Amino acid sequence: MLNIGIIGVGRIGRVHAESISRLVPEAKIKAIADPLINDDIKKWANSIGIFEIYDDYNKILMDKSIDAVLICSSTDTHSQISLDAIAKKKHVFCEKPIDHDVNKINKVIDALRDSKIKYQVGFNRRFDHNFQAVEDATRNGLIGALNILKITSRDPAPPPISYIKVSGGIFLDMTIHDFDMVRFISKAEPVAVFATGAANVSSEIGMAGDIDTAAVIITLDNGCTAIIDNCRQTTYGYDQRIEAFGSLGQISISNDTNSTAVISNSNGIIGEKPKYFFLDRYTEAYISEIKAFITSIVNDTPVLVNVLDGLKPVLMGIAAQTSLIEKRIVTIKEIENKYYLR
Amino acid sequence: MLNIGIIGVGRIGRVHAESISRLVPEAKIKAIADPLINDDIKKWANSIGIFEIYDDYNKILMDKSIDAVLICSSTDTHSQISLDAIAKKKHVFCEKPIDHDVNKINKVIDALRDSKIKYQVGFNRRFDHNFQAVEDATRNGLIGALNILKITSRDPAPPPISYIKVSGGIFLDMTIHDFDMVRFISKAEPVAVFATGAANVSSEIGMAGDIDTAAVIITLDNGCTAIIDNCRQTTYGYDQRIEAFGSLGQISISNDTNSTAVISNSNGIIGEKPKYFFLDRYTEAYISEIKAFITSIVNDTPVLVNVLDGLKPVLMGIAAQTSLIEKRIVTIKEIENKYYLR
Amino acid sequence: MLNIGIIGVGRIGRVHAESISRLVPEAKIKAIADPLINDDIKKWANSIGIFEIYDDYNKILMDKSIDAVLICSSTDTHSQISLDAIAKKKHVFCEKPIDHDVNKINKVIDALRDSKIKYQVGFNRRFDHNFQAVEDATRNGLIGALNILKITSRDPAPPPISYIKVSGGIFLDMTIHDFDMVRFISKAEPVAVFATGAANVSSEIGMAGDIDTAAVIITLDNGCTAIIDNCRQTTYGYDQRIEAFGSLGQISISNDTNSTAVISNSNGIIGEKPKYFFLDRYTEAYISEIKAFITSIVNDTPVLVNVLDGLKPVLMGIAAQTSLIEKRIVTIKEIENKYYLR
Amino acid sequence: MLNIGIIGVGRIGRVHAESISRLVPEAKIKAIADPLINDDIKKWANSIGIFEIYDDYNKILMDKSIDAVLICSSTDTHSQISLDAIAKKKHVFCEKPIDHDVNKINKVIDALRDSKIKYQVGFNRRFDHNFQAVEDATRNGLIGALNILKITSRDPAPPPISYIKVSGGIFLDMTIHDFDMVRFISKAEPVAVFATGAANVSSEIGMAGDIDTAAVIITLDNGCTAIIDNCRQTTYGYDQRIEAFGSLGQISISNDTNSTAVISNSNGIIGEKPKYFFLDRYTEAYISEIKAFITSIVNDTPVLVNVLDGLKPVLMGIAAQTSLIEKRIVTIKEIENKYYLR
Repeated sequence: MLNIGIIGVGRIGRVHAESISRLVPEAKIKAIADPLINDDIKKWANSIGIFEIYDDYNKILMDKSIDAVLICSSTDTHSQISLDAIAKKKHVFCEKPIDHDVNKINKVIDALRDSKIKYQVGFNRRFDHNFQAVEDATRNGLIGALNILKITSRDPAPPPISYIKVSGGIFLDMTIHDFDMVRFISKAEPVAVFATGAANVSSEIGMAGDIDTAAVIITLDNGCTAIIDNCRQTTYGYDQRIEAFGSLGQISISNDTNSTAVISNSNGIIGEKPKYFFLDRYTEAYISEIKAFITSIVNDTPVLVNVLDGLKPVLMGIAAQTSLIEKRIVTIKEIENKYYLR
Repeated sequence: MLNIGIIGVGRIGRVHAESISRLVPEAKIKAIADPLINDDIKKWANSIGIFEIYDDYNKILMDKSIDAVLICSSTDTHSQISLDAIAKKKHVFCEKPIDHDVNKINKVIDALRDSKIKYQVGFNRRFDHNFQAVEDATRNGLIGALNILKITSRDPAPPPISYIKVSGGIFLDMTIHDFDMVRFISKAEPVAVFATGAANVSSEIGMAGDIDTAAVIITLDNGCTAIIDNCRQTTYGYDQRIEAFGSLGQISISNDTNSTAVISNSNGIIGEKPKYFFLDRYTEAYISEIKAFITSIVNDTPVLVNVLDGLKPVLMGIAAQTSLIEKRIVTIKEIENKYYLR
Repeated sequence: MLNIGIIGVGRIGRVHAESISRLVPEAKIKAIADPLINDDIKKWANSIGIFEIYDDYNKILMDKSIDAVLICSSTDTHSQISLDAIAKKKHVFCEKPIDHDVNKINKVIDALRDSKIKYQVGFNRRFDHNFQAVEDATRNGLIGALNILKITSRDPAPPPISYIKVSGGIFLDMTIHDFDMVRFISKAEPVAVFATGAANVSSEIGMAGDIDTAAVIITLDNGCTAIIDNCRQTTYGYDQRIEAFGSLGQISISNDTNSTAVISNSNGIIGEKPKYFFLDRYTEAYISEIKAFITSIVNDTPVLVNVLDGLKPVLMGIAAQTSLIEKRIVTIKEIENKYYLR
Repeated sequence: MLNIGIIGVGRIGRVHAESISRLVPEAKIKAIADPLINDDIKKWANSIGIFEIYDDYNKILMDKSIDAVLICSSTDTHSQISLDAIAKKKHVFCEKPIDHDVNKINKVIDALRDSKIKYQVGFNRRFDHNFQAVEDATRNGLIGALNILKITSRDPAPPPISYIKVSGGIFLDMTIHDFDMVRFISKAEPVAVFATGAANVSSEIGMAGDIDTAAVIITLDNGCTAIIDNCRQTTYGYDQRIEAFGSLGQISISNDTNSTAVISNSNGIIGEKPKYFFLDRYTEAYISEIKAFITSIVNDTPVLVNVLDGLKPVLMGIAAQTSLIEKRIVTIKEIENKYYLR
């Protein structure tokens, strides 16, 4: 039985806590920590059998009976907590992104070098049934050599402007998932990035120096071209689709819906809109990623999303941001060189 | 070059005339006849190169240069004109049904016996791309032994009550196409029929002694069960679907639409309604059936829908009507015996 | 906190046990009973926190701390255990069907009369997201007055012949779910039934006196016609579809799949087959029905599938069986009269 | 009655000839010209009523009774024949592209200035039912302000390498249709182009200096971003899809198929592949564009695809080609300036 500590019990921390307490018999949540702990959180924690509740995450790190921590706090704290947890020999599940600053990610990479610590990054979409179907078909050669990979990822509604301002920009906040998907499905590394976009949805987002609509082309080292389009707002819900086109065929996925119901009437033949909320869309994926993390510790197998998988999409995001601003193609090598990588 | 005469130039007669004049180079429409000939018809006929225009169809039958006639007049005249045309050795394309009265159909069958006359019945759906895909897959063994055959056939709106009154009832007017489809796809003959229904759409139809909604189960001599449902009215258009389920799989067709466009918005994911009007839905089928008729004459090959194919659905319709009224299963044998068949 | 006892821990009993232990915090499984208890079952039970394990279900009924029982034993024991449980004032969740014998169901109905016992029948499909979408749309008037209700329900593979022999026949074993769906969606009661079918899949099933393929038409007291087709075997998985057609439109559902993936290659445009296994297809429904049962006890609200809902489909099944054998339409009244009902 | 001459009766010239002779009663093909005239062509021409057959197109231009010509010869002859025809006051339908050389197109533009000649360019996809559904919905505000426009256009198989070598490159040969679609649907003008691609399908194409797979991003002057992906080869047929995403929703089209048949078996749920051949896919569009041309002459209305619509996609193609080679974003202004436009 693994003992788990959860650092940060906002929305996503609680999702993971409930997954573990209900569905992962091999693990037990021994403690949680959150600087904003209150009676509601305590009540919720007790209801799922958690009774050690701290406002200082070091209490968790100092508990020698705790094997692993989940870092679900705000992004700006991820790298420091990661370093602290690694120092205390805890296995780490860290929500994405590790950081927006490549140097800080590099410190985590350095700290992990030669350790036996499992460090998994929270790219939940790798555990989604639809995306896995694409990855599986591609890996197993069903579509032959991958040629064009198209990803559409659009949110139902933009986050508050206060969030936008600290988000690191659309590429590091939203597209980062798609950058990860590009690597996950293609099994290739990015060579160069071209990005464009606009604040078409919200002028407020534009005034905050960000965009809400983006198109990105990425050339990969296997000759494949990846195309991403994003938008912060749709009228029809959360739009998450992929097409992988190869020499032997194409695999594509469409959105999940709450039912397969189709109504035919004088307005048309009307199917359900996609699941609206990302927690509904990725419910099973959140459970699966946590199960996979626990399994990799229990069985001492490599994690399925390692720290380098956490780094690469950040490099791609920085390249995209640079491309957008400087209106030119940007190579990943250029970004890497900037941070003295390799 | 075949010379054709068309008897009856209402809606469907004109459709056939235009198909031949534009798309069948092996045939020429030499003359048309219609008791209600007027200036508009003359103008239309001239515009497609028809200049012999009569009010008496015997003028056509007496023209020795005419090889074949299309009987597109009202149903009650079909059998007599058929007999007259056969007497004059004309090949005949007769719109469905040959008659509602089995005895009259039998006379046509008798007249054709030992003749070399091509006699094709206008079951246009046998020439539809979708229904042909089902027939083709079934005939070629793609679904194995047929087990359940389901046909949905619903009109967008009921015809005028005046039409209903002379229609012969829903089974002889509307379901008759589906009865033909059952035989076309199953390659089996009906054994027994159970039918039920109601006037749920229009009380006026009910008062006219007819129903507007029907469900029919037919057992076939190959052990397959056919299920038909009909309605005289939908809110979403002309609904024409088939599912053929067999030991190796199922083939199903959905409706045709004017485009593949799908709109996603706050109301849902909205596809186009089916093509609304039967002439739009079956445009190509009407052309193909006429081409097939011409081809069978030119090449001296059997017609694809012969006079017995015209009889059988009428027997099924009478069986269904009897089943509805007497609330019991009715065998085709019983109906045949009534008319001293076989 | 409700205490629950589970009587019968075969496949479905264990599904319910796991649902309650993981996902229903208001309830605790205090004990299980099964005549075939063994070490594997004990180990499994312990692993989810169940430590009272009996081979005699009376041990559960005599435990005054137990509030409710789930009857998941073989069908032939359902009615007697129901009577015993009711005598001990336990709330009852009884797997479907209560019995094949109407007289035995009537005894349960009598025992429940004037009691405050919650008695829910395990028609799990009422809790399925797809079927609920149909029921919801129909109840809320989205399709207007229901006119034709079509249900396709086909199993991926037939059960062992040993099961077939004690199953009560296809109508009481398989179609019974569809009979329930007819009532659930139409909110109407059956008037008359016509059924036909054959042993087309397996001659062994035929020799056992059963059929494996069935078609049923049911007329309802609101003028609607329901059409059911069943088969014990498909090549493509578990086929569970409904179409509800009304005066304002139609709502239809298609099958659930494991992903939305579509592969396009030289063989066609290929989507996933339906979920194959009923426990996969109805995973959520099994959870929801148990949650609903617990909720109705906790809140003292009526159960959503009561004992009469358990009776009616059995009457429909007997009517269908009679129709098949006697090749005639059978009214529900006739079946009811036979059992001196009403 | 308009008299038409057709210059060039290869595949597409014959398609137009048959459309006019069968389906455009307002026009008559008086003559055809082709340097490679032979007995087969003569026989075919006679069969549809064409008896004036020349090897020199000037014979057509000198015939004063001829009102309009269709230029269906090889691309390198389009601009000169256009100039000659304009000089003889013929209305012109010119297959796309007018030329690969902007200077030559400019000469045609100059020749047309202040004339009353109708000059239509053969961008047939503007007349396709699916693309028109997208354009129609977009123009009518159904999707609000256009934000992202995605076009997938892939051929079933590459043309012969001999064709590739004179094609002008993928952007001027294949993507040019998509460039036209971008303008047709967005009603906006391109500002800048980024293109990338590779010879992934055929190394022979690569050795010929061309690519077979391309991805293009175009920024438009209304703030919309267009994304095009192309490939010279698929295993599943001719892939022609569009998604237009706007502030109020999205409209998307999928491919046309020969039937709506779906087969369900142990391999999956299998729909038909897209129509394979461009002449099958765009049969109706080819008819409609010719009808539109005739109509614009008869009614003296503007043509629906004018000479500037012929120029712009060539500029976009040159920009894309430049972007690919120089690995940078290229503005349309830069290309225009190069040719002293504006």
